[in-house]
Amino acid sequence: MSAFDDETAVEPMGRDAFGRDRWSARVDGRWNIGDNPNGGYLVSIALAALQKVSAHPDPVSVTTHFLRPGTGDESAEVTTEILRGGRTITTGRSSLSQAGTTRIEIIAAFADLARGAGAGRGPDAIPSFGPSPPSIPPPDRCVVRSGSEQGIELPILDRLDVMIHPDQARAGQAGTPVVSGWIRLADGADPDPRSLLMFADAFPPSLFGSLGSVGWVPTIELTAHVRRRPAPGWILGQLETSDLHDGRMIEDARLWDETGALVAQSRQMGLVLAR
Amino acid sequence: MSAFDDETAVEPMGRDAFGRDRWSARVDGRWNIGDNPNGGYLVSIALAALQKVSAHPDPVSVTTHFLRPGTGDESAEVTTEILRGGRTITTGRSSLSQAGTTRIEIIAAFADLARGAGAGRGPDAIPSFGPSPPSIPPPDRCVVRSGSEQGIELPILDRLDVMIHPDQARAGQAGTPVVSGWIRLADGADPDPRSLLMFADAFPPSLFGSLGSVGWVPTIELTAHVRRRPAPGWILGQLETSDLHDGRMIEDARLWDETGALVAQSRQMGLVLAR
Repeated sequence: MSAFDDETAVEPMGRDAFGRDRWSARVDGRWNIGDNPNGGYLVSIALAALQKVSAHPDPVSVTTHFLRPGTGDESAEVTTEILRGGRTITTGRSSLSQAGTTRIEIIAAFADLARGAGAGRGPDAIPSFGPSPPSIPPPDRCVVRSGSEQGIELPILDRLDVMIHPDQARAGQAGTPVVSGWIRLADGADPDPRSLLMFADAFPPSLFGSLGSVGWVPTIELTAHVRRRPAPGWILGQLETSDLHDGRMIEDARLWDETGALVAQSRQMGLVLAR
Repeated sequence: MSAFDDETAVEPMGRDAFGRDRWSARVDGRWNIGDNPNGGYLVSIALAALQKVSAHPDPVSVTTHFLRPGTGDESAEVTTEILRGGRTITTGRSSLSQAGTTRIEIIAAFADLARGAGAGRGPDAIPSFGPSPPSIPPPDRCVVRSGSEQGIELPILDRLDVMIHPDQARAGQAGTPVVSGWIRLADGADPDPRSLLMFADAFPPSLFGSLGSVGWVPTIELTAHVRRRPAPGWILGQLETSDLHDGRMIEDARLWDETGALVAQSRQMGLVLAR
């Protein structure tokens, strides 16, 4: 069992007064960024519970609102509810609480990515197209992600290998709000749709590339779409901020697997606080 | 009072057994696309209720899961719940039901767009940047949106003026999955953050530009970010599908006001069914 699966495991605890399923979990401090757990890691725990009650295996659309930071090395409670179980889509919500306070709230749609959604075959089939991966140096010619430049401890880097494009690794170096690089689970476990959702939130903020040190960029909401089950190996990520106004940013991320297939896209609204 | 405000109005009906606020509404058939109400119109009703209990006025992040189609000219019930009321953000959810069945489920964050989010002033201020509007012909040189080509009745066109770029108005004409044009409320009422969310869902599907007639493109989930309060006048919209795989598409939309300011961005995951 991978550290990711082990440290995002949930145990059933029956139902609450509203008929919702309850689950217990533990938030491991080894996924911290600074003093708090990585947001994508909390999402992975809340989704592990929802996945257990979904009739479809793959989270294809996941929206998370980050209400309050989580706490590492503390227990957590997850509550799940199926909103609709359809033939091709299961929709549900999940919330993760610690010490009686909700930390994240999720609404998600699950499908079966091994089956098409009705695109058909032959001359009337719906075509496929999508963005190609950027050309970046291979992982061994990239630079290990470091938090030291921003004065942030990154315990999560014992759990994740994160290699940043050598032209984008220092604050302000890129000159544009773009960060790209490679990511994988440090213990060699293969990526899956749930770990992709965590990867999308584990790169440095792309504004780091243009503004330099930006401090903490709290995410208000992040929506991720998983497009394919990833092939084994590294995941290539590219993050870009194309829209920043009044301290509110929209950052887009795309992830490709080692075969060059687009496996996930995500977008977040975050706050950029004055330095 | 505009037809939009009048036909998205909600009346309080007390609280349910879970402590959630309940509201009554009526789904007006004049916002139908084909046999069912436009999805963005249903969102506008569910958000009208949530806006009444939010301490902040502007919906800045709105995710909607479309569980089942709505029914025009029937009553509806909306249930709202505040998940967190913070200093700068209020987060809540809202669901709209008809005949005892949930049709849409929303999670949204509200803020005050008239106030910055902490970007600061002077040399340390966080900058602003964003995508510029495309150059398209003025509304009087665009083509009125018509549903006849796809065999769909569009009662909503009595409520909305929708003018499509003359090079993109016929099925397959553009050759690329892009649609752009102008939109406004037909009775001359000014746009506001809530009507922007409806506008983002009121253009033809952008796949229409490349695939030609695509039939119904059911939206699974749509997330919209309102970036600024819009100036009075027309709204310029551009929609594009950059990612289509296995019959599941990701379509992005951007809206600008008449001053050229980006006022909203949205992204949806939809199904493209074989013809």
